[in-house]
Amino acid sequence: MTISVAIAGATGYAGSEILRLLLSHPAYLCGRLRIGALTAHSTAGKTVAELMPHLPQLADRVIEETSAENLRGHDIVFLGLPHGHSADIAQQLGQQTTVIDCAADFRLRSKSDWDAFYGGHYAGSWPYGIPEVPGNREALRCTNRVAVPGCFPTAVTLGALPAVVHELVEPDLSVIAITGVSGAGKKASVAQLGAETMGNLKAYKPGGTHRHTPEILQNLQPFAKERLSVSFTPVLSPLPRGILASTTAGLKGGVGKREVETAFRDFYAQETFCHVLPTGQQPETQNVVGTNMVHIQAHVDERARRLVVTSALDNLCKGTAGAAIQCMNLALGWDETLGLPQAAVAP
Amino acid sequence: MTISVAIAGATGYAGSEILRLLLSHPAYLCGRLRIGALTAHSTAGKTVAELMPHLPQLADRVIEETSAENLRGHDIVFLGLPHGHSADIAQQLGQQTTVIDCAADFRLRSKSDWDAFYGGHYAGSWPYGIPEVPGNREALRCTNRVAVPGCFPTAVTLGALPAVVHELVEPDLSVIAITGVSGAGKKASVAQLGAETMGNLKAYKPGGTHRHTPEILQNLQPFAKERLSVSFTPVLSPLPRGILASTTAGLKGGVGKREVETAFRDFYAQETFCHVLPTGQQPETQNVVGTNMVHIQAHVDERARRLVVTSALDNLCKGTAGAAIQCMNLALGWDETLGLPQAAVAP
Amino acid sequence: MTISVAIAGATGYAGSEILRLLLSHPAYLCGRLRIGALTAHSTAGKTVAELMPHLPQLADRVIEETSAENLRGHDIVFLGLPHGHSADIAQQLGQQTTVIDCAADFRLRSKSDWDAFYGGHYAGSWPYGIPEVPGNREALRCTNRVAVPGCFPTAVTLGALPAVVHELVEPDLSVIAITGVSGAGKKASVAQLGAETMGNLKAYKPGGTHRHTPEILQNLQPFAKERLSVSFTPVLSPLPRGILASTTAGLKGGVGKREVETAFRDFYAQETFCHVLPTGQQPETQNVVGTNMVHIQAHVDERARRLVVTSALDNLCKGTAGAAIQCMNLALGWDETLGLPQAAVAP
Amino acid sequence: MTISVAIAGATGYAGSEILRLLLSHPAYLCGRLRIGALTAHSTAGKTVAELMPHLPQLADRVIEETSAENLRGHDIVFLGLPHGHSADIAQQLGQQTTVIDCAADFRLRSKSDWDAFYGGHYAGSWPYGIPEVPGNREALRCTNRVAVPGCFPTAVTLGALPAVVHELVEPDLSVIAITGVSGAGKKASVAQLGAETMGNLKAYKPGGTHRHTPEILQNLQPFAKERLSVSFTPVLSPLPRGILASTTAGLKGGVGKREVETAFRDFYAQETFCHVLPTGQQPETQNVVGTNMVHIQAHVDERARRLVVTSALDNLCKGTAGAAIQCMNLALGWDETLGLPQAAVAP
Repeated sequence: MTISVAIAGATGYAGSEILRLLLSHPAYLCGRLRIGALTAHSTAGKTVAELMPHLPQLADRVIEETSAENLRGHDIVFLGLPHGHSADIAQQLGQQTTVIDCAADFRLRSKSDWDAFYGGHYAGSWPYGIPEVPGNREALRCTNRVAVPGCFPTAVTLGALPAVVHELVEPDLSVIAITGVSGAGKKASVAQLGAETMGNLKAYKPGGTHRHTPEILQNLQPFAKERLSVSFTPVLSPLPRGILASTTAGLKGGVGKREVETAFRDFYAQETFCHVLPTGQQPETQNVVGTNMVHIQAHVDERARRLVVTSALDNLCKGTAGAAIQCMNLALGWDETLGLPQAAVAP
Repeated sequence: MTISVAIAGATGYAGSEILRLLLSHPAYLCGRLRIGALTAHSTAGKTVAELMPHLPQLADRVIEETSAENLRGHDIVFLGLPHGHSADIAQQLGQQTTVIDCAADFRLRSKSDWDAFYGGHYAGSWPYGIPEVPGNREALRCTNRVAVPGCFPTAVTLGALPAVVHELVEPDLSVIAITGVSGAGKKASVAQLGAETMGNLKAYKPGGTHRHTPEILQNLQPFAKERLSVSFTPVLSPLPRGILASTTAGLKGGVGKREVETAFRDFYAQETFCHVLPTGQQPETQNVVGTNMVHIQAHVDERARRLVVTSALDNLCKGTAGAAIQCMNLALGWDETLGLPQAAVAP
Repeated sequence: MTISVAIAGATGYAGSEILRLLLSHPAYLCGRLRIGALTAHSTAGKTVAELMPHLPQLADRVIEETSAENLRGHDIVFLGLPHGHSADIAQQLGQQTTVIDCAADFRLRSKSDWDAFYGGHYAGSWPYGIPEVPGNREALRCTNRVAVPGCFPTAVTLGALPAVVHELVEPDLSVIAITGVSGAGKKASVAQLGAETMGNLKAYKPGGTHRHTPEILQNLQPFAKERLSVSFTPVLSPLPRGILASTTAGLKGGVGKREVETAFRDFYAQETFCHVLPTGQQPETQNVVGTNMVHIQAHVDERARRLVVTSALDNLCKGTAGAAIQCMNLALGWDETLGLPQAAVAP
Repeated sequence: MTISVAIAGATGYAGSEILRLLLSHPAYLCGRLRIGALTAHSTAGKTVAELMPHLPQLADRVIEETSAENLRGHDIVFLGLPHGHSADIAQQLGQQTTVIDCAADFRLRSKSDWDAFYGGHYAGSWPYGIPEVPGNREALRCTNRVAVPGCFPTAVTLGALPAVVHELVEPDLSVIAITGVSGAGKKASVAQLGAETMGNLKAYKPGGTHRHTPEILQNLQPFAKERLSVSFTPVLSPLPRGILASTTAGLKGGVGKREVETAFRDFYAQETFCHVLPTGQQPETQNVVGTNMVHIQAHVDERARRLVVTSALDNLCKGTAGAAIQCMNLALGWDETLGLPQAAVAP
């Protein structure tokens, strides 16, 4: 049987990265997976050659209008749409279609968080696409609905999780997460011009004003004995892809270097995509570009009695499209790691 | 009377930035200030044309060997040498020469900090070159010895100071300071290659391992009622110049938005080079490139009860060479702001 | 007497660079020059603090609507408007106002060139703002109308001119001019997003399709004995500011290295802003960033019998705003070099 | 049978890119290809984890000293060594080992070219690794010696070839080839520092002084009726990977747009890795990053009667390591395209 895959919002950065990954997915290469409808709104009617010249294999494909009609009949539908459009489409596609949503629409389990950070109709929540968080993988296996997490929450959650689970730190986390510019998406904007972003650093949503804040808390709180607080500040920096998240928290009394090292190393020992670096080596975004990896290092600041965890990932890959494919693999009952690069395009 | 100025280490980034600033200094333009000996070690004998083609006015000048002999007889000597060379040179120059040292040699007032972070002979401390820190300006006025601060300590100190002075925050500060690549200096290195730094982010000295940590504490502790702790992590990012420092600390009970705003605005109301941005506007490094400015914003994270202060400066200018010129102006009894740009080369 | 200056289109890249230069202009610093109305269209009503935070000295100034009414009464009016708006405004301002236009409206002397490359109403031509081209300086001195040249034509003209004047080359010139991203202006666009321009090179208007082509020919042809042809291709590259133009042409029979060197060196011997580099040294854009300089090198390719001239400038400064100030100085009968940086913000 | 592969110079940029490609090569994934010895000189004894953290699958592998002894016994040996070391190693490995050399040692067929541009012992030439040049593929199939071409010659040759073969242009070619910084290799250098290369453009070897000049001529001359001349100038620009080469030449009389289009389209109709873009669309380096593709566009400049061909590739992939793998596939009698990405990591 051939699995057919459609992508709504195929010409945005999330959609085109899903395509890049599918084109080298073993199931595609051996004919078990077929790339069906590619849809979008403002670019409908144009060819892949015009819109995504980095995908020459699909040059002649024409982008269709995003509609339930064009997406229907596929086994898998990836949604790379602006927030607020997924619920309606998903309902029209029916339960026999597996819908993997890259927007925020189904990420939050709390309506009050939704109201505070997004507003508008709250559509509920779907199984959440970080399989490496205990409990998630089981829910993702053979599901027909997936909420792909935000790029920052993935970086911060996977960085902080071992510390929270093993009660290594006090419950107040401070996060500075530096991101490349593709995170802003492929839409015209003065603030995102090359001239405004090259040679520039800017904390664009300081201290808890960014919508990814409640998502981070939602991921970590279930593993904490105390009530957590997270102060989250994203910084825009001049690189196309990559997130480097630094999470700082006070060390619990008595916690030392060795305990931290062991906790982190053991926590991800079985996880292909979470790579805890050797002692003393720091994560670099260039080492994860193009891959589904998260590189993690936990550093004990003895003088200040603080734990500083640094985690790096590719915001478009593990942060979005790679996670989407990982969840597709799980939803189809396949090996979770299929078609997901581990070796980065560095330098 | 004409003031004569010499620069040791003139061909490094600090030295050449001092030259750039001197060339447009009103005292130079009207002939009151003369650029004398330019010295260096490995580049001695070459011309400015070969080594610093961005300074065409000095193209024919020849770099001399760094020695007390070549530096002697000038009114002002700027030292842009590697750590450990300043004490010896300064002694040989005598007290009639004003020595402005851009290295770390005379920054730390505590021998034990020196031993812990630098090691080797401890030479004592000189008046510390952040005039905006209360008490410093007086010591700098008409001094003949200046220790120019590190670029990170300047950014963090000026960002955090109003919060510490006004007891707005708990005494545990977490700092993530993102820097451009010129901070590493002009020396051959694989880690600093363009191919290794473009498109890359890396926390290179996490949590208190960077030598600027004790300098930050030394600046802030005198203004705190409690014992401070600072966890400082610098991150290397792909821009030539600029530092964006984020300092996070718990808000003291009862402290709110308005109090924070007032405290910051008032604190720097009389300072030309410390610019507290209007509410809601975030500092960007591109807005300070080439200038002696620090742009500052303090953000109250109500949910997490944290203060997040962001400060931006040009590491080579206000972070080094600009501060050096500002201190020269003070040491000469001139208007402190002479020859120091406030309008940035943006974008 | 105080000269009052207004800027229309003050919040674009050309306008804000004119402001940056004026703020350190000696006439402004000593009060002989006053910055009057700052106007724009879509940003009218906002403050400089919001729109141009890199100019803190003017933070409280409010942007007015661009209209003849708001601009009238100033001695100098700089126009940084989109093409097609200058003629109308200039007419309303009258002859007592000196109008310095940064748009293309009055650059071309040939109506047929205008029709072929721009179209719409042809408004004639004004004195052309490259004083270093023989004949131009005289026309610019004390004029009340100036057409500021395009950034590419300035780079290519000043690079190629000595070779054309001295008949060193065959009349067919091939130009590849690599530019930073600020040349595209401060308007929202997908193609100019940071994510699309970082890590990317693109020849965006190949072989004679760019509007600056006839302007280059217009500048050079008067100095040539034969009919010139120019094939001009601009390439977009990932830097905020800077143009590096390579002009290649066949060497005339018998022309050798020494002749070329002498011709270039002598041609610009008296020009402050045209710097012919020492033999063997190549122009770099970082050495002209923020300045009004053009760095030039002429290389003889003996094997291929070709001359390769490389010229570098800052597209926003000598390429636009610096030239505008240089022309203002001339129009006012002042020293042409006043307020124009020669030392670059490098690295 | 399992093919065993060794890499000498494995920790340089060429070597590590070969590793990245091998790790996703179908023959490796199914166990038909084994990665054997990884050798280097200055980094011998260290682990892949320390030296190439972007290849986590090989983290525990230890780098051995480069010696015939350590390389012997493998079926394929890739050499990523500095020029001058390949002949000696190849001789010691014997004819049963297939040696694929990424250095220049065996590229030039003319001893006088070698003497003029490299000097030292001339070791002869090996089958040349651009299979898309007519005649080369046959020589590469089942060879045991391959000279992998230089990155610039690949870009320029594949761009210009259809024009030369079809006699569309006059025999004088002018090439400006803009390159990213990884082309300089992974060795410490002041000129290659991030601070010197970000925000900077520089023509570093103008007009025929670069060693790749004779290699370009060697590739094109056999297909030309007249004696060719090439003026080649490389420009360094601020991106990690990518080359954009512009080749300009006079159009032969009567040659028009349609003829050019057809010639280019047909020439590469059967080539997987040479992609002639649709009319009007320009190559961009971001569309080939991480791939083995060359994107090509030929533009007719009617006014100047010039052909401007633009070609883009990834200097480390199709420009080096991708070509090496392509040649390995051919040498082993496998499908030439195996394991070579066509979809780029964009943006």
